[in-house]
Amino acid sequence: MYIKKSSMNILFNPKSVAVIGASEKETKLGFHVMKSLTKGGFPGKIIPINPGSIEIMGLKTFPSIAEFPYEIDLAIVVLPAKMVPAIFEECLTKGVKGIVLITAGFKEIDDPIGADLHQQLAKIVNKPHVPVIGPNTFGMINLHGHLNASFTPEFSLLQKGGIGLVSQSGGMCHLISFMALRDGIGFSKIVGIGNRLNVDFAQMVDYLMQDPDTNVIAIYMEGIDNPKELIDIAKTYGGKKPIIAYKTGLGDIGNRASHSHTGSIAGRGEIYSGAFSQAGILTVNSVEDLLDTAKALDVSPIPKASSVAILSSQAGPGIAAADICQMSDLDIVSFNEETQNKINEILPPLALRTNPVDMGPAWYNSEALVGILDAVMRDENVEGILLFMMFASANVDSIKSLSFLLKNMKQKKPLITCLSAPPGIWDEQIKQFEKANILVNFPTPERAARVMVNLNRCRDIGNTV
Amino acid sequence: MYIKKSSMNILFNPKSVAVIGASEKETKLGFHVMKSLTKGGFPGKIIPINPGSIEIMGLKTFPSIAEFPYEIDLAIVVLPAKMVPAIFEECLTKGVKGIVLITAGFKEIDDPIGADLHQQLAKIVNKPHVPVIGPNTFGMINLHGHLNASFTPEFSLLQKGGIGLVSQSGGMCHLISFMALRDGIGFSKIVGIGNRLNVDFAQMVDYLMQDPDTNVIAIYMEGIDNPKELIDIAKTYGGKKPIIAYKTGLGDIGNRASHSHTGSIAGRGEIYSGAFSQAGILTVNSVEDLLDTAKALDVSPIPKASSVAILSSQAGPGIAAADICQMSDLDIVSFNEETQNKINEILPPLALRTNPVDMGPAWYNSEALVGILDAVMRDENVEGILLFMMFASANVDSIKSLSFLLKNMKQKKPLITCLSAPPGIWDEQIKQFEKANILVNFPTPERAARVMVNLNRCRDIGNTV
Repeated sequence: MYIKKSSMNILFNPKSVAVIGASEKETKLGFHVMKSLTKGGFPGKIIPINPGSIEIMGLKTFPSIAEFPYEIDLAIVVLPAKMVPAIFEECLTKGVKGIVLITAGFKEIDDPIGADLHQQLAKIVNKPHVPVIGPNTFGMINLHGHLNASFTPEFSLLQKGGIGLVSQSGGMCHLISFMALRDGIGFSKIVGIGNRLNVDFAQMVDYLMQDPDTNVIAIYMEGIDNPKELIDIAKTYGGKKPIIAYKTGLGDIGNRASHSHTGSIAGRGEIYSGAFSQAGILTVNSVEDLLDTAKALDVSPIPKASSVAILSSQAGPGIAAADICQMSDLDIVSFNEETQNKINEILPPLALRTNPVDMGPAWYNSEALVGILDAVMRDENVEGILLFMMFASANVDSIKSLSFLLKNMKQKKPLITCLSAPPGIWDEQIKQFEKANILVNFPTPERAARVMVNLNRCRDIGNTV
Repeated sequence: MYIKKSSMNILFNPKSVAVIGASEKETKLGFHVMKSLTKGGFPGKIIPINPGSIEIMGLKTFPSIAEFPYEIDLAIVVLPAKMVPAIFEECLTKGVKGIVLITAGFKEIDDPIGADLHQQLAKIVNKPHVPVIGPNTFGMINLHGHLNASFTPEFSLLQKGGIGLVSQSGGMCHLISFMALRDGIGFSKIVGIGNRLNVDFAQMVDYLMQDPDTNVIAIYMEGIDNPKELIDIAKTYGGKKPIIAYKTGLGDIGNRASHSHTGSIAGRGEIYSGAFSQAGILTVNSVEDLLDTAKALDVSPIPKASSVAILSSQAGPGIAAADICQMSDLDIVSFNEETQNKINEILPPLALRTNPVDMGPAWYNSEALVGILDAVMRDENVEGILLFMMFASANVDSIKSLSFLLKNMKQKKPLITCLSAPPGIWDEQIKQFEKANILVNFPTPERAARVMVNLNRCRDIGNTV
């Protein structure tokens, strides 16, 4: 389905939004949509539509969009399914540029009436190329534009960032967002595409590839009606921005559930994974992996080669990471002579001084820690660095020295870390480093190592950003 | 190596502790050990030993343990390696019952002098069966006894709980503890066994199996000198308490690093995994998996059969979990007639009403959610329940109803959940449920599903608790 770029732009950046089915009752989704728009700080015009109300949340309410005297860019529809075709006709007459259709009860229901309604809607909007998010969705959010066109006001609490999230599951979008809220991870757009009337993964990827606010596209997918369309679009952009996809519905039970959920056949994981790799789409295996990898790709460069250094201020985490790197064919490279001499000077012979470096004997010697890190950063044999340090009161001084080094560092190699300390000791400082694009931090060495593996897989399938 | 039970008891529950190498200088580990003991609220006598001081942290300091006029149960040693044999002799003369040897520089160093020293120490303490934690360790903590015999005072911030953690890596112990601090997970004992003079995994398992404060034993392991000893001990207890082991050093680089780290050969993972399973030891693949599984086993019963129900208030998380359950051969069972009829009454036909249940259409109908959960809890076809719910302002009412049901529920089937909400909405309530042993909550559906798989694997290898 072809959707005009200009229409997609207006869909995500409307000047005016009508909520068709706005409500004052907390038990109605139309209430929560109104709350999202108003509390989310939408800078444009919000027009509640409800024939039974005069005012909702202090805003003048109209019985229908026809009676609103000015233009309406975006309509959010929360009325029962059977009323929607007539509403769509009204929207077109009014000149609405885009629709978010929250209502469920179309293609995903057993009753053929649902599929009929779906077809009816498609006929109405496809000819004039009006983009529709949904049906059967919580909505969508453009964080940079302060547009929360969903029934969950809490999405507006998220930070602005470069991750564009496109999901077939509202539950997963909520889950990922709540995880991101706790970790301070930011998004550009969050889109629940639901049953995909005419905006599917392909259309969203096409749009987000050209969206200046989006650095990386994260996809949660159960099934897809037209995989070739997505694959072709991804290929068109040839690795311009990384795309990460988490695909569920791999077993027959999940597949059946997926069919019931958003009306599509999920199908076998390996087939997708292979085809996606060829199109430069990275596949991952959990929401945690999806969010971790997206977080890294939003801010970190992709390593030029799979030559990794593992520096750990305690041996254990380094060993765990070395296992993962080796199993995934990353090269735990030899350092160049200069680096190795420097490390040999700093560390006593009782430590493992080659890669992976056990900085244990320097655990509370901040000068030594910083000296090693600095030498490895400059080593041209190394293209990616995994750094693990556990801080407690005995070595809290090292935090200052490490912070100083990191702040003044000029290197542009990916630095993926697990810097861990008791709550309150270092959390804020680490977040500052992340915001300054100096490093990307994860709660465990294994998650950091898997992200390093994924950054390298990203390069292997054609991404170079 | 045979260690008397009574000696191990005194080691972890001493009435008096001497810190040999106590210091007032923040740059010395002897300072931090003193801080751990005093700030940790140790109720017994603390005796700093340092010939150069009269008083440390307000406590009278003795030049040697010989000059302290009363009994000393536990000695913590933080002096340089070459001084330790003489100190050990002094300890035995004084009648010390147990030693924590923090000092490094023994078996793990390249210099043969280290191995010699190790042998020398073993000769001194093994004949009189005096248990030694270390060398090359951060120490150990008995949370229920308020004994923090380590150089990291922050361990005392942890909650008391039923997880006994035994680790070959101090870094991993710190990491796991900091993770647990953030999540409110409690421990009985945390022990860094380091280079294992005479207290190895086998001795710790033997002790913790009989420790009334410990419900589950979590092990982080790089290598092991005498795997048969551990396996034999584990078999002796025949699944009395679950043992979970995370083993690294699987690749040759990690193996080499492990040898350098704690002086032992790591070896191939599959060999351990097979042998461990036969001894009833569950193997896992990351610190996250280790802590997640330990957290669940501390409070949850083990399911009687692998028949699982998946209830999700949004389809996506249920589909992701169904994939994991199916791949791990759990049975996503059919409900009995009564349960199925009840669900069919509650949910409209547009939802998937068989297992996994998509409770989406009841997302903000709290009565419906609770009705389904209650029916499935009572269903004798079901032995374990995965429950996923994402809460936002639109369905915040359901929290109350669900809370009421959970509080009044009599069932004793494992209830593993991913209940997620924006920060502040429900965190405290969920922690209360966890404390009351009603459910075990995880941040993602995949982690919850993997824990359910591990609970079932636990039963399959002989655990029935």
